[in-house]
Amino acid sequence: MSVKSRTFEIISRGSDGDRASKLFDGVIMALIAVSIVSIILESFDGFAAQYYGILHGLEVLCVIVFSIEYALRIWTADLLYPESKHPRLKYVFSFLAIVDLLAILPFYLPFVSADLRFLRMMRLFRLVRLFRIFKLGRYLDALNIIADVIKGTLSQLVISVIICFFVMLFSSIVMYTVENPVQPEQFPNVIASLWWAICTLTTVGYGDVYPITAVGRVFAAIISVVGIGIIAIPTGIIAAGFTSAINRNSQAKDDPKKFCPYCGHKLDD
Amino acid sequence: MSVKSRTFEIISRGSDGDRASKLFDGVIMALIAVSIVSIILESFDGFAAQYYGILHGLEVLCVIVFSIEYALRIWTADLLYPESKHPRLKYVFSFLAIVDLLAILPFYLPFVSADLRFLRMMRLFRLVRLFRIFKLGRYLDALNIIADVIKGTLSQLVISVIICFFVMLFSSIVMYTVENPVQPEQFPNVIASLWWAICTLTTVGYGDVYPITAVGRVFAAIISVVGIGIIAIPTGIIAAGFTSAINRNSQAKDDPKKFCPYCGHKLDD
Amino acid sequence: MSVKSRTFEIISRGSDGDRASKLFDGVIMALIAVSIVSIILESFDGFAAQYYGILHGLEVLCVIVFSIEYALRIWTADLLYPESKHPRLKYVFSFLAIVDLLAILPFYLPFVSADLRFLRMMRLFRLVRLFRIFKLGRYLDALNIIADVIKGTLSQLVISVIICFFVMLFSSIVMYTVENPVQPEQFPNVIASLWWAICTLTTVGYGDVYPITAVGRVFAAIISVVGIGIIAIPTGIIAAGFTSAINRNSQAKDDPKKFCPYCGHKLDD
Amino acid sequence: MSVKSRTFEIISRGSDGDRASKLFDGVIMALIAVSIVSIILESFDGFAAQYYGILHGLEVLCVIVFSIEYALRIWTADLLYPESKHPRLKYVFSFLAIVDLLAILPFYLPFVSADLRFLRMMRLFRLVRLFRIFKLGRYLDALNIIADVIKGTLSQLVISVIICFFVMLFSSIVMYTVENPVQPEQFPNVIASLWWAICTLTTVGYGDVYPITAVGRVFAAIISVVGIGIIAIPTGIIAAGFTSAINRNSQAKDDPKKFCPYCGHKLDD
Repeated sequence: MSVKSRTFEIISRGSDGDRASKLFDGVIMALIAVSIVSIILESFDGFAAQYYGILHGLEVLCVIVFSIEYALRIWTADLLYPESKHPRLKYVFSFLAIVDLLAILPFYLPFVSADLRFLRMMRLFRLVRLFRIFKLGRYLDALNIIADVIKGTLSQLVISVIICFFVMLFSSIVMYTVENPVQPEQFPNVIASLWWAICTLTTVGYGDVYPITAVGRVFAAIISVVGIGIIAIPTGIIAAGFTSAINRNSQAKDDPKKFCPYCGHKLDD
Repeated sequence: MSVKSRTFEIISRGSDGDRASKLFDGVIMALIAVSIVSIILESFDGFAAQYYGILHGLEVLCVIVFSIEYALRIWTADLLYPESKHPRLKYVFSFLAIVDLLAILPFYLPFVSADLRFLRMMRLFRLVRLFRIFKLGRYLDALNIIADVIKGTLSQLVISVIICFFVMLFSSIVMYTVENPVQPEQFPNVIASLWWAICTLTTVGYGDVYPITAVGRVFAAIISVVGIGIIAIPTGIIAAGFTSAINRNSQAKDDPKKFCPYCGHKLDD
Repeated sequence: MSVKSRTFEIISRGSDGDRASKLFDGVIMALIAVSIVSIILESFDGFAAQYYGILHGLEVLCVIVFSIEYALRIWTADLLYPESKHPRLKYVFSFLAIVDLLAILPFYLPFVSADLRFLRMMRLFRLVRLFRIFKLGRYLDALNIIADVIKGTLSQLVISVIICFFVMLFSSIVMYTVENPVQPEQFPNVIASLWWAICTLTTVGYGDVYPITAVGRVFAAIISVVGIGIIAIPTGIIAAGFTSAINRNSQAKDDPKKFCPYCGHKLDD
Repeated sequence: MSVKSRTFEIISRGSDGDRASKLFDGVIMALIAVSIVSIILESFDGFAAQYYGILHGLEVLCVIVFSIEYALRIWTADLLYPESKHPRLKYVFSFLAIVDLLAILPFYLPFVSADLRFLRMMRLFRLVRLFRIFKLGRYLDALNIIADVIKGTLSQLVISVIICFFVMLFSSIVMYTVENPVQPEQFPNVIASLWWAICTLTTVGYGDVYPITAVGRVFAAIISVVGIGIIAIPTGIIAAGFTSAINRNSQAKDDPKKFCPYCGHKLDD
């Protein structure tokens, strides 16, 4: 086996007994975790000042390792897409590769890396890869069911969100009209009023903005009750999706190829 | 084809290849969107002052286009309702026509159009037409399922809202009795107390009004727990509605009259 | 027909064509509504002072009519329970009769009626009778389904509430221990801490009491996430109940006596 | 019957007619309840000072009785695990025995029992045993169904919580980056920002921390809407679990192996 195919094996999800592949996966996951923990620790003023050297060192290590990994993945792209004409181009423009690049590239651009806040946001892209953690172990089935249900009900959920947005827009314009003359500081414009609408319809209710006029409160009351419906619709859609998924699963398990689970009729193979 | 029938074709939902009809639809939708965006922008003090001319011009343009559209729809009403004796009257009193008229009429009445707040509310009627956006594209099925589920469970949802209102009324009277002597400013009367009840039962909880007496808190605690039920009932109704809709859909696809919907066994007629 | 049986017919739910019975029902319902509206209006200081005479007069009218109704119901109790040995005693101790009595009795006791707050609470018993409004009209089916679902899932809902109470008690004791030394005014004792636990677990979140220590916040975070589960369990129970009720209904409608809805087999009558 | 086996009978869940066993159970439950009520009462400053003697006496009584019970359970462990080689060791390291020990041990350690807060936390372990209350009476079935549903959907619920945690971590880092420069006191670091994320995603919304910048509010709005989904997923999972449990129950009752569960038609074996 060539060095290239062995490298590909290691950086891909290897077979169960492949120790090198597991080690590689573990190191990458650990470095992502270290990177996220660094972001959290850096946000503490005292800590960031005292341990700047260590945090910066870890970050440099992460970027180097992720860069090497990125390079190796490009190198072995022709093994990943054996039938593609331009396997490396295909890989570079794949979703995960773009995410990987965005998480490391800024550190090589001096004029960009001066903006620490921007750098932090870019490092967040690494979180995406942490989702690979689900691939290991016994939770994979459960994750697949959740993903299937969300995919299966996606168009209905999108409609719910759009309806929700319409209701929010409508109620924020009404509330702005009603409350602005009385509370010009709380409801200065429709966008600020939209903030109230979102807080109310999602039932978060921070309490920083709320109507004080009689008309405003009556309208807010109606919107609050509508808000229950706005929450109930996606919940209902998802619940129905899971019910349907469980039914499909239990039918599959009953082995429908031998007997119909409902009428008991022996089935033709 | 006469000019009239061609006009009717264009302003109706045209066939797939009808470019003029699609253009017309697009222009109307765009103007509605412009109109809504204008409402939002006007609410910013500085913006409204600086760009008054542009905003007013856009509004005049919208009103003119919508007026022409309204006139054309009346003109072609006899093609929409070919079997009606009074097609134009029928159209004028249809729900969508009334909404369309309310969204433009006030601008022609000088004594009304002086009240900017009233004008803004009337322009909101245009939002209703934005819902036609769902008719285009792949989300139509999903919207229909949601609409069917809400229609099918409407009477139960209405009952839930009525029960909810009874619980709110009951708890606001009790809370007024308990809290008024201690917090006369927060609970001045039953209606103000109703505001608390709505905020609590919908779990919004702004935190502007809350009980401080021991009895009030015990009662509020009970009402909060009841509030979970008040949310759970419509959610449960809608979830059951979606589960039932999904079941019907999958059964319908299998044509249960000839074959068992589960095993595919041909059934004896 | 004797005067007594006619009276009984009128005060009972009469047959569809019985105008006197409908009138009686309407008058009683209207007086209950008047009574509730009076409670609301009395709570407005200015209104109560200005219209004291009218409000008091309406209340006296209500009490007189309800007293006569109560007397008539006792008089005709032997027609309601024809097989009972002591029909009047049985009626007097029935749930609805006790509620009716509690709603009028205090007004005849001078030493009691001096306490206006107590009087107001007693008048609230009349709200119970307003539920009879559902018996009229097309929402009766929907109400019955909701009532059946709640009855069918009651023991599970009770368990949920008990579990919820355990979690609340547990978390309030923990939170008191953690926060009391830092915020003695917000968490003076376990009962006050319970108020926080209820506000958090029901996701109302008024924001009058919240943890400020690091340990308290970590614990509150865990409890908030548990709170989602506490809401999800009754919602799930009720949703499953409605799903099951709809399935039963649609099976009943398919007329299962002729063909099995699942295997299509002709059924023996 | 030896004293030992009789003792074992009494401290185990005895047969229905065993009065001594019921009395023992009752006394233990009552003492646990007394212990919990003591914790609540002790938290009231005045009460604790005035009735210190009684509260302390009750606590000593509880510890003595629980210690005797613990000793008896160790003594009779060989009857509980007749097939085990080391029944006492097995009992001592069982979950319930550890909980029992933790609830009494600290009171025998003078250097530990000086810390009243620590003692209180340890006494909370007794709450675990209160769950045995469900074993008595008619709610056992309902509790079993709830426990089965939670067990059956546990892996999906765990995934939901992990996804929820990822979303919280992600949004708290973003919000820290956006709001820290403007509100350094409200968002001093990522962990404090996590507190905001939890309050928002669970829709508790205390209102002690919320974004004030435009970017922060837009992001918070998106997160609030995502929060509805975060709540909807576990609710949907649990609802589907209950629907499935009800279906299984009704199918199990009908014995599907011999007759079609729906039409009762005898099936060909």
